Amino acid sequence: MTLDFDRYLAERVAAINRYLDRYLPSETTYPESIHRAIRYSLFAGGKRLRPVLVIAASEAVGCSQDAVMPAAGALEMIHTYSLIHDDLPAMDDDSLRRGNPTSHLVFGEAMAILAGDALLTQAFHLLAGAADGSPPDPERRLRAVAVLAKAAGVEGMIGGQVVDIESEGKKVGAETLSYIHHHKTGALMEAAARLGALLGGGNEQEIDLLARFGKEIGLAFQIIDDVLDVEGDESQLGKSAGKDQKAGKVTYPQIHGIEAARGRAQDLAEHAVDLVAPFGKTGEPLACLARRIVNRHS
Amino acid sequence: MTLDFDRYLAERVAAINRYLDRYLPSETTYPESIHRAIRYSLFAGGKRLRPVLVIAASEAVGCSQDAVMPAAGALEMIHTYSLIHDDLPAMDDDSLRRGNPTSHLVFGEAMAILAGDALLTQAFHLLAGAADGSPPDPERRLRAVAVLAKAAGVEGMIGGQVVDIESEGKKVGAETLSYIHHHKTGALMEAAARLGALLGGGNEQEIDLLARFGKEIGLAFQIIDDVLDVEGDESQLGKSAGKDQKAGKVTYPQIHGIEAARGRAQDLAEHAVDLVAPFGKTGEPLACLARRIVNRHS
Repeated sequence: MTLDFDRYLAERVAAINRYLDRYLPSETTYPESIHRAIRYSLFAGGKRLRPVLVIAASEAVGCSQDAVMPAAGALEMIHTYSLIHDDLPAMDDDSLRRGNPTSHLVFGEAMAILAGDALLTQAFHLLAGAADGSPPDPERRLRAVAVLAKAAGVEGMIGGQVVDIESEGKKVGAETLSYIHHHKTGALMEAAARLGALLGGGNEQEIDLLARFGKEIGLAFQIIDDVLDVEGDESQLGKSAGKDQKAGKVTYPQIHGIEAARGRAQDLAEHAVDLVAPFGKTGEPLACLARRIVNRHS
Repeated sequence: MTLDFDRYLAERVAAINRYLDRYLPSETTYPESIHRAIRYSLFAGGKRLRPVLVIAASEAVGCSQDAVMPAAGALEMIHTYSLIHDDLPAMDDDSLRRGNPTSHLVFGEAMAILAGDALLTQAFHLLAGAADGSPPDPERRLRAVAVLAKAAGVEGMIGGQVVDIESEGKKVGAETLSYIHHHKTGALMEAAARLGALLGGGNEQEIDLLARFGKEIGLAFQIIDDVLDVEGDESQLGKSAGKDQKAGKVTYPQIHGIEAARGRAQDLAEHAVDLVAPFGKTGEPLACLARRIVNRHS
């Protein structure tokens, strides 16, 4: 029997949403405004791709999802903070995200900045704090904090965002675009898979292999994102379409063409599928995830 | 012989500056702009109060400073990030900090936001990563990450900043002001002393006692900050004077009067000095620090 991947995804996404809802202070906690702003962006119907990747990677090394839920939650919090800050007027100045007005339009710029700061900070609290369950080996959890901080920082996501912002309206080449993709999206996806394997108890070889898997599907994801920005329609995307072009941003399809872009994403996904073949049955959700990423429409 | 506290401070501040300089990527590291922005704010002549507190607390429990330098550096990075974001146009909209133009005026708003995000993120990397030296017990380091995240997050500094921003131009009472002070300044000072004791190998009783010490001098520091904002002159302060009043912010002297404010700060400092008396000689720098905080002019 083959895996019912839609059901698999739905179950994992529901588990992540329950976990985050339980972890985060309610909207009636003082000071209420920041908690409302945090929950507004965190529960806006995100795909939960990074936390699902954490869980699927932990399952590949034979772990139940409970041990990695803090890491899964932390990844989604970091991702959400990055979207809130990217949407700010000083950055991409975007008005629509996941089909809703962006945080600063609803709560004001100050609160949007603070909600992002809070999500980034709480992610490390979640990852380091013994929120619940039996804590795995403290050495591995400490290593997990370092992995996440590196992936989210100047050597990772923030570095990518800096180059992305500075490249706006400039003629940049394939190399710079590759830097942006690897750092802005790839680093966090790589970290998600690495953390799942690390906290799921995988050995060093498994951890490295799954990190490579995360990196490849992260790139595939970003290329498809660029393609959808050109081809997609706003109602399906839930965010402004054509915004890359409007912002004078260089994209993969611009440099290489739409066909080559789709082909490259397909190749990356197929290679990623090959990477996890050795895991057999337990790696099947990862393989499905890789294929889903390149065949999505939003 | 009594302690030469000026020399003590100068030596610790120099050690912190050397440590941060060695840890942080140089200004020629790609992408250069973010590293320039990070260094601009981090090496702008801050007093290094929080890292000195980390080191002095660790010395009180009999530890050499090497083991706590990552925590000392992390505290200063978090403090610096909070200043960069607080100064943004959407927040306090300030133009002068430590005698220099604020980050967003020099590097633009986008880069200032990202430099703040980067400093916050790297603080956790520094604290969790085995940057150098023999790492103490991973359980304690993991606990240190959780302590720092809690103190910097919605239950601490960010919570204080939210209430501070929302109180502008409103008539708020002593209770709200106390919340702002305890959270915006107190939480990180408490965490600094707690981390020094925790990572310095102190027992639970010592850790709690030093955390209380940090909290009290943190409050004293903030009250004196408010007093100096009223009384101080810009050239000595290195930041805009009278800015609290201009921003419609309530301050301790406004509610309680200047004399009562100075008296309260003095009482807090004296009580803090009493708290560390049991440490004898090794607690002397902490006592000097408490007194210095209330007798400063900038």
